[in-house]
Amino acid sequence: MHKLRVYYLKYFNALDNFPGHFFWSKPIELEKKFMQVALDLAKNGEGNVLPNPVVGCVIVKENQKIGQGYHQKFGADHAEINALREAGPKAENSTMYVTLEPCAHYGKTPPCTAAIIKSGIKKVFVAMEDPNPKVAGKGIAALAAAGIEVKTGLLNYEAHKMNRAFIKYISTGLPYVSVKIAQTLDGKIADTNNNSQWITGTFSRQSVQNLRFTAGAVLVGAGTVCSDDPKLTIRNRKVMQQPWRIVLDPALQTSVDSQLYTDENKQRTIVFTSVCRKNDDAISKLEKNGVHLYFCDCEPNLHFELNEVLKNLGEMEIAHVLVEGGSRIFSSFMQQKCADELLLFIAPKLFGKGLSALDIEGYSASAPLRFRDQTWSQSADDMLFRATIDWD
Amino acid sequence: MHKLRVYYLKYFNALDNFPGHFFWSKPIELEKKFMQVALDLAKNGEGNVLPNPVVGCVIVKENQKIGQGYHQKFGADHAEINALREAGPKAENSTMYVTLEPCAHYGKTPPCTAAIIKSGIKKVFVAMEDPNPKVAGKGIAALAAAGIEVKTGLLNYEAHKMNRAFIKYISTGLPYVSVKIAQTLDGKIADTNNNSQWITGTFSRQSVQNLRFTAGAVLVGAGTVCSDDPKLTIRNRKVMQQPWRIVLDPALQTSVDSQLYTDENKQRTIVFTSVCRKNDDAISKLEKNGVHLYFCDCEPNLHFELNEVLKNLGEMEIAHVLVEGGSRIFSSFMQQKCADELLLFIAPKLFGKGLSALDIEGYSASAPLRFRDQTWSQSADDMLFRATIDWD
Repeated sequence: MHKLRVYYLKYFNALDNFPGHFFWSKPIELEKKFMQVALDLAKNGEGNVLPNPVVGCVIVKENQKIGQGYHQKFGADHAEINALREAGPKAENSTMYVTLEPCAHYGKTPPCTAAIIKSGIKKVFVAMEDPNPKVAGKGIAALAAAGIEVKTGLLNYEAHKMNRAFIKYISTGLPYVSVKIAQTLDGKIADTNNNSQWITGTFSRQSVQNLRFTAGAVLVGAGTVCSDDPKLTIRNRKVMQQPWRIVLDPALQTSVDSQLYTDENKQRTIVFTSVCRKNDDAISKLEKNGVHLYFCDCEPNLHFELNEVLKNLGEMEIAHVLVEGGSRIFSSFMQQKCADELLLFIAPKLFGKGLSALDIEGYSASAPLRFRDQTWSQSADDMLFRATIDWD
Repeated sequence: MHKLRVYYLKYFNALDNFPGHFFWSKPIELEKKFMQVALDLAKNGEGNVLPNPVVGCVIVKENQKIGQGYHQKFGADHAEINALREAGPKAENSTMYVTLEPCAHYGKTPPCTAAIIKSGIKKVFVAMEDPNPKVAGKGIAALAAAGIEVKTGLLNYEAHKMNRAFIKYISTGLPYVSVKIAQTLDGKIADTNNNSQWITGTFSRQSVQNLRFTAGAVLVGAGTVCSDDPKLTIRNRKVMQQPWRIVLDPALQTSVDSQLYTDENKQRTIVFTSVCRKNDDAISKLEKNGVHLYFCDCEPNLHFELNEVLKNLGEMEIAHVLVEGGSRIFSSFMQQKCADELLLFIAPKLFGKGLSALDIEGYSASAPLRFRDQTWSQSADDMLFRATIDWD
């Protein structure tokens, strides 16, 4: 996490150097408006671009939008290129608003800086620097060297928030971890008979499908697979690809007939188990089905080193993982400080006795586990608390 | 609770007979507006009129408000009288909007119906019938008999909600019970060292003082007095009278030096204890201080029959009790189904291990303890869930 911290520091310094909105003049309000359009465009890429960032771009001439674009899909053209294509020759002497620093290197596509310079654009607003070490200021430098005026930091916070998964992934190599819990008012995720269907309402459960889409990868423990036999798919919209389904199953106690291992998406399933089960019959059945297997150095029934799991997922270019249960997995991610974000759906009901969502070490009332950037939002009858976990 | 149920049934039937807002014409929208003004006026009486209801009244002539009033204080003039005084002789041929059926009997004040009839008012809109058996339709009948057109049911739901404490009290003789819990996201009200100061933020704690004011009576268990030595007073505004402070202390384990028994409001403190402690030194000290004592038939360290407690409070004309803690008291009120309403402040933090707010029997996922009329509202960084408990 060291690199990430350094990056965050840079980011907050950048914010400090940017004039506060109290002092912003009218033109800046207009510029914020155009950058907001670019941010809204960027959101259209959510769920399709990871491990790339979402990016939006607007080109403006005489206060009129003459081109716009966003990064639509991993490997496809960048936002800037799409916007320049729409603007055509009118781009000359115009202003570009882009949510992320344009790239200056040859990746899956040629560098955007070259295209921007060639188009004759006069001024570029950049919401945030690209934390990708291959870019990291080089894009801005290339534009400036070509005589283009570059301004950085407009709606910087919003741009960061939108790409928080990408930022962690590119800075640390580890996926961003969102822990999603659906609980009662009294913090229970199942009743005394271990029944949990359904705690939250339809609307919240639909939202979870959107979260799966945005993250692109879902993680559960063996217990959840054994008791619920879930599919963990996205069913509320058509998708190019279902999310990765990751199972942490040290003792390989899940049935080889589980839906995750046998359905039409079985090749999108990854199982982490312990080395000592390497020659098992079950293993060969899973391998035959095309299920991906990772062998961790851990005793069965013990907890995984989650950083090892996350490292492996990062190497597979999985940049964001939605942790969906159950209690043991939630608690491990919290206990090992491997969760970045909590998404807590609270249903308006009480279970009394039952299974608590979290079984973690005690914090004190004077120093509880706290959050940053929290939002409370109503989700039909339920409430959704979403926030970054403050491990510091 | 039988009488209350019958009353509720009448109320819902009344709602059914009232035309839905889809079919309401423009004039009805205007009538709703005037009744809303009356409801807003009524709210000004909150905290000062119990065990009376809050009531607001507006008098309108040619779509202009010519008089308004509300029930300001227990024992003082009713809302109708205040509004008629403001309208004066202009009241002739006007329309009255009143949130509760006018009284037809001599109580602390003369009957309002007589004054209304005398004023020459032509038409009266009544939001809800008075559940007080002394009124219960007789007021409406008296007006109608005098040739005044009476329409009942306009903003009926809102009028009921506002007086839910009075409705229960007048129908059952028992105070309305609001259970107020301040907990973490994981349902804890104290850390492992039993420390709980402060879970929620300043704004939520200020709100609790308003709740104390509205209810007029606060109830805690012996444990809370022993560990926190609270004052349970209203400190954020000037009040004519501090709330009743009620302590449930079967074994009389609280110190006679507790603030509740020694401060300037000690005569507003009521202690429920068990009969077997009747001749104790502590008892005589409390009595000397003017603390009210009730002796219940209960073994020390056992739970009280809360209905007996509530019956005694009702006889003291306490119509609304705010239950403020701790865990054992919360759990008893829930377990004995003596709570009418839950007010749950949720703070954006986690304690992990610690003291759970509730330790009650398990409900099943298919039949959890549910709520009615729920609202979620943000309370600075905290969230407030407020709802009627659905015991049926």
